[in-house]
Amino acid sequence: MNKQDVTKSLANVRVVLSHTSHPGNIGAAARAMKTMGLEHLYLINPVRFPDKQADIMAVSAVDVVKNAVVCSTLDEALQGAVLVVGVSARVRDVSQEVLTPREAMPKLIQQATQLPVALLFGAEMSGLTNEELVRCQFMVTIPANPEYSSLNLASAVQLLSYELRLAAGLGDIPSPDLVPAPAEQLERYFVHLEETLGQIGFLRTQQTTKLMYKLRRLYSRARLEQEEINILRGILTLTTEFHTRQNRKTNQ
Amino acid sequence: MNKQDVTKSLANVRVVLSHTSHPGNIGAAARAMKTMGLEHLYLINPVRFPDKQADIMAVSAVDVVKNAVVCSTLDEALQGAVLVVGVSARVRDVSQEVLTPREAMPKLIQQATQLPVALLFGAEMSGLTNEELVRCQFMVTIPANPEYSSLNLASAVQLLSYELRLAAGLGDIPSPDLVPAPAEQLERYFVHLEETLGQIGFLRTQQTTKLMYKLRRLYSRARLEQEEINILRGILTLTTEFHTRQNRKTNQ
Repeated sequence: MNKQDVTKSLANVRVVLSHTSHPGNIGAAARAMKTMGLEHLYLINPVRFPDKQADIMAVSAVDVVKNAVVCSTLDEALQGAVLVVGVSARVRDVSQEVLTPREAMPKLIQQATQLPVALLFGAEMSGLTNEELVRCQFMVTIPANPEYSSLNLASAVQLLSYELRLAAGLGDIPSPDLVPAPAEQLERYFVHLEETLGQIGFLRTQQTTKLMYKLRRLYSRARLEQEEINILRGILTLTTEFHTRQNRKTNQ
Repeated sequence: MNKQDVTKSLANVRVVLSHTSHPGNIGAAARAMKTMGLEHLYLINPVRFPDKQADIMAVSAVDVVKNAVVCSTLDEALQGAVLVVGVSARVRDVSQEVLTPREAMPKLIQQATQLPVALLFGAEMSGLTNEELVRCQFMVTIPANPEYSSLNLASAVQLLSYELRLAAGLGDIPSPDLVPAPAEQLERYFVHLEETLGQIGFLRTQQTTKLMYKLRRLYSRARLEQEEINILRGILTLTTEFHTRQNRKTNQ
């Protein structure tokens, strides 16, 4: 998938919320969508909308709420969508295939690179109606605790939007500039460390190899950066100087 | 990982919320945790707790809220945890490694099969403090829209709890009993279909092969179940009977 396809794919995904009871859930769903780069929200007969609570819960995604398309029928909400995927907490006796989010979202994204697709969420308490179920090509169910599998609506939107973002290849995070120091710098540190430990009398001959092995293991695991090596070697230098001063005092 | 390890691993994960402002977020986080099989919630100096709003938002996870351990210091909340992972929306100039949820949660789970671990969330507005940051062995950042990356606290808890559940090998969903029919049954259907289409005059000799190829493609893709084949063949049988009756009428 090239970069243009990816951008288009998220733009082709429509989140459809059917008969949502609580306007706060609409706002929270809009926020969840926007954090993952989705923007097209469709609402089928929301119980209370527009509503101040939706705007409050949307925080900075109030644009997604304002641009939401309010529909009075399922047909209206699904118009133009070539793939409709239903979200269900319960796997009922439906003929459709039921997939996990990680299986389903790549399929949705692949289709969305070319044409509009819809992710359909039922009402908070009752889920998808039979009329809605039969319009879905397949279902997605979020793996959950069998003893309590009822996710909040906005949480379900968050989770599937996240999987969509990952499926679209946008799952990278900006990484801080952690640059581990090159091998020779690490080696110089270990030489310096061994010398210093010898000078202060910490190393006894028979234990040297084993102890240095353990210290090497520790610092290698930490993947030291150059600046950290400088700090550690600075400490070693001052340790020796302090030690030398102490010896001088003692010998005076 | 065997099944016992898995169960133990989720039980060894502690979700730590530091200085949470809104009690509703504590309840919603508890619900998010419970849906994914997590139960140990630690709260460092919550602004308002206990609070009715927390119980309301927890819905059926009110037990997680009731059992939450309220701590007055970070030390208290992290006591006994051998691995502390911080959740951050911003990747700042920290020396720790920053991983995605999908990279980080398997590491947390692997450790949690043996000893307690902690997932540390900062306050809603300000995130982790420097004091909290330095206590983390590594950081996890949720991939997000660079233009709006601020997930609701409970949404972040939901998402990471989900990744923990998947990392623990509990990502399966109960699948409905969709049993595709065996090849020979599908074949009998195609033979029946071709006969019927011939009888009603839909097939012309030159197109038969191509058309049947297309119909085979369609029905193969749908992975028909035995019951569906029975329905489709029932339709074919009645189609032939209807056609025969019509012909008889016409010839009378």
